Amino acid sequence: MAHEVRIVTEAELRAALPLDLAAVDAVEAAFSALAAPGAVMPPVLSMHLPQVNGEVDVKTAWLPGFDGFAVKISPGFFDNPARGLPSLNGLMVLLSARTGLLEAVFLDNGYLTDLRTAAAGAVAARHLAPSRVDVAGVVGTGVQARMQIAAAHLVRPFSEVRVWGRDGAKAAACAADIAASLGVAARAEPDLPRLTEACQLVVTTTPARSPMITRAMLHPGLHVTAMGSDQPGKNEIAVDALVAADLYVCDRLAQVRAMGELRAALEAGLWSMPEPPELGQLVAGQRAGRASTRCVTICDLTGTGAQDTAIAAHALRALGSAGTRIEV
Amino acid sequence: MAHEVRIVTEAELRAALPLDLAAVDAVEAAFSALAAPGAVMPPVLSMHLPQVNGEVDVKTAWLPGFDGFAVKISPGFFDNPARGLPSLNGLMVLLSARTGLLEAVFLDNGYLTDLRTAAAGAVAARHLAPSRVDVAGVVGTGVQARMQIAAAHLVRPFSEVRVWGRDGAKAAACAADIAASLGVAARAEPDLPRLTEACQLVVTTTPARSPMITRAMLHPGLHVTAMGSDQPGKNEIAVDALVAADLYVCDRLAQVRAMGELRAALEAGLWSMPEPPELGQLVAGQRAGRASTRCVTICDLTGTGAQDTAIAAHALRALGSAGTRIEV
Repeated sequence: MAHEVRIVTEAELRAALPLDLAAVDAVEAAFSALAAPGAVMPPVLSMHLPQVNGEVDVKTAWLPGFDGFAVKISPGFFDNPARGLPSLNGLMVLLSARTGLLEAVFLDNGYLTDLRTAAAGAVAARHLAPSRVDVAGVVGTGVQARMQIAAAHLVRPFSEVRVWGRDGAKAAACAADIAASLGVAARAEPDLPRLTEACQLVVTTTPARSPMITRAMLHPGLHVTAMGSDQPGKNEIAVDALVAADLYVCDRLAQVRAMGELRAALEAGLWSMPEPPELGQLVAGQRAGRASTRCVTICDLTGTGAQDTAIAAHALRALGSAGTRIEV
Repeated sequence: MAHEVRIVTEAELRAALPLDLAAVDAVEAAFSALAAPGAVMPPVLSMHLPQVNGEVDVKTAWLPGFDGFAVKISPGFFDNPARGLPSLNGLMVLLSARTGLLEAVFLDNGYLTDLRTAAAGAVAARHLAPSRVDVAGVVGTGVQARMQIAAAHLVRPFSEVRVWGRDGAKAAACAADIAASLGVAARAEPDLPRLTEACQLVVTTTPARSPMITRAMLHPGLHVTAMGSDQPGKNEIAVDALVAADLYVCDRLAQVRAMGELRAALEAGLWSMPEPPELGQLVAGQRAGRASTRCVTICDLTGTGAQDTAIAAHALRALGSAGTRIEV
C-alpha cells in the first residue's frame, strides 16, 4: 500500500523552526517521556573511521505518547573544513511509532541536532539554574556557544554575557553576535576563573579532552551545563569539581558513564555517590532539582535519541505544508 | 556549501535493479572487502519495541575501495498485516566514504534488503554448493523463498525445485511462482527429510525458533544456506547438524555468535571447533571452501551492513538519471 513521505530541506526547516520556547518545550517533553515507563532508547551506534578522520553516530528513541520516533544519522568528518565542507552533516528520519512506516526525511545537515541540543541546554537551565541569572557565561565560540546562550536566555533573561575562547578574536566575534541577536551586553573574557566568578550560569560547549572547569571556579549559586562531551575521551569538568557540586544531573546515566563527564570520575575511582538523577526525572518531578539559591549544580548533556525524536515530532507539527511529498 | 541529494523510490529501484548477476557480483565484492584490512562494521543497533510488537534494526559498514557507505534503517512491525500494511519497511541512505556527505536516500520499503539478502545466498551457493546442482530446495514460502531460489539459480542453473512450507497451499503457490519465473520444474514437498534427500542445495528462509534441519537430514554432497536467523532466539539448523557438517561458514562471526545458528551451539556448549571462516574469507581466497563433492557444508547468513553498502553503491551505479534531485 503506497504512502506519502515528506522530504524537507535544511532551508525549509530553518524557516519553520526557530530556536524558541516551543522548541524548548518540545524537548522538555521528551526528557519527561524518557523518564516514563515504556521509553526505549538503545545505545548509540558509533562507527569510528580513523582512516578518513571521521565518525558516524546513529541515535534513536521510542517514547510513550509520541506518534513518531526519529532515527538520526550524524557523520562527523574532520578533514572536511580543509575541503571547504562542514565537518558535521547528516539527516534525521521520522517513523510512525505504531507501524514503523517512514513519514518524513529531514535533510537538515545537522540543523535539528543544533536546535535540540540548544533546547536541552534551556531545559537544564530552567530546572537547575538559580531563578535569577544576571550574567551568563559561555566557554567556546562555535555555533553551540551562540545557540546555548540564546536558548538559556529564553528561560533566564539575563542582561550580560561573557565569552571565553582559546582564540580571543573568535571570542570577541561570538560576543558581538550574541549582543546583536539578543540585545544584551556581551564581551569576551580571556580569564576563565573571572568568567565563572561573574556568572550564575555557565555553559561549556567545547570538544575539550582535558577539563576546563575546576573545583576552584565553583561558587555558591552557580549552575554549569556541560554539553561538549559526546565521545569517550572528551572531558570539560574536572573530577574534583564534579564531586564537589551539590547536585550533578545527567541527560542519560548509561551515556554519561560511557561518554560524559561522569566517565572520568568513574575511571579515577572518585565517584562514590548514589545514582545521579537524570534531567527527565527532574522534569517529571521524580527527583529534586536545585535545593537552594546557594547550591552549585552541574548538568551533563551528551545528547540523546529522545531529543531527536522530540525535535522531529516538533518539526512535523511546525512545518505546515512545507517540503516535497513523494509517493513510495 | 549546498550539494545535491538523490531521492529514489522503490518503483525506481525495482525498475533499475533486478536480481541478476551484477547484483550478486556487487554483494560478493562487499564480502571480500569485509575481509580486508580497514573494513569497519559496528554491531547492529537493535531497538526492541514489545509494546507495539515491533523492532528496528540499523546496519552500516565502511568498506575499503567503496566510494560510499550505507546506513540502513529496517523497521519490522508485526501487527501491520492486520492493518493491511507490510510488516517490513524502511529505507537506506548512502553517504560519501570520504566526506560523510549524504548522496542518496533510497525510499525502498525494504526492496534493497531483499535484493542484497538474496544476492548473498547466491554468493554462498557459488562458493559452497557442489559445482553441479540438479535439484534445489527451499524451506519457507515467503518473498525470500522465491528470491533465494532465483538468486541461487543464477550461479547453479538447477532444473528442479522442491518447496516445503507449514502451509501446503502456500508451498504450492510458491512452487508455481518459481516454476513460472525460472522455467524449472517446481513442486511442493510436504516431507522435509524427503526434500533434503532429493536436493544438493537447500536454502532455509524461515523465522523458526526451533530447528528445521536436523543431523539426520544431512547427506554427502549437500549444501545448506540458512538465512532466516537474524535475531537472538531464531534457529533453523539443529546443533547436532551444525557440528556434524564438514564445513560451517558464516557471514560475520560476531553476528552469528549473537544472532545466528552458532548461538544455539555455543549456548549448548557443543561448539569446540576453531573459529569458523567468514564467507568473505572464502571469496578473498583466505580460507578454503568446499573440499570435495561429498562434503556437507552449511552457510549461516544473518545479514550485514557490508551487503547494504554494496547494494547501495550498486544502486547508484545502476540508476542512471532516475530519482528526484534535491538541493540541500
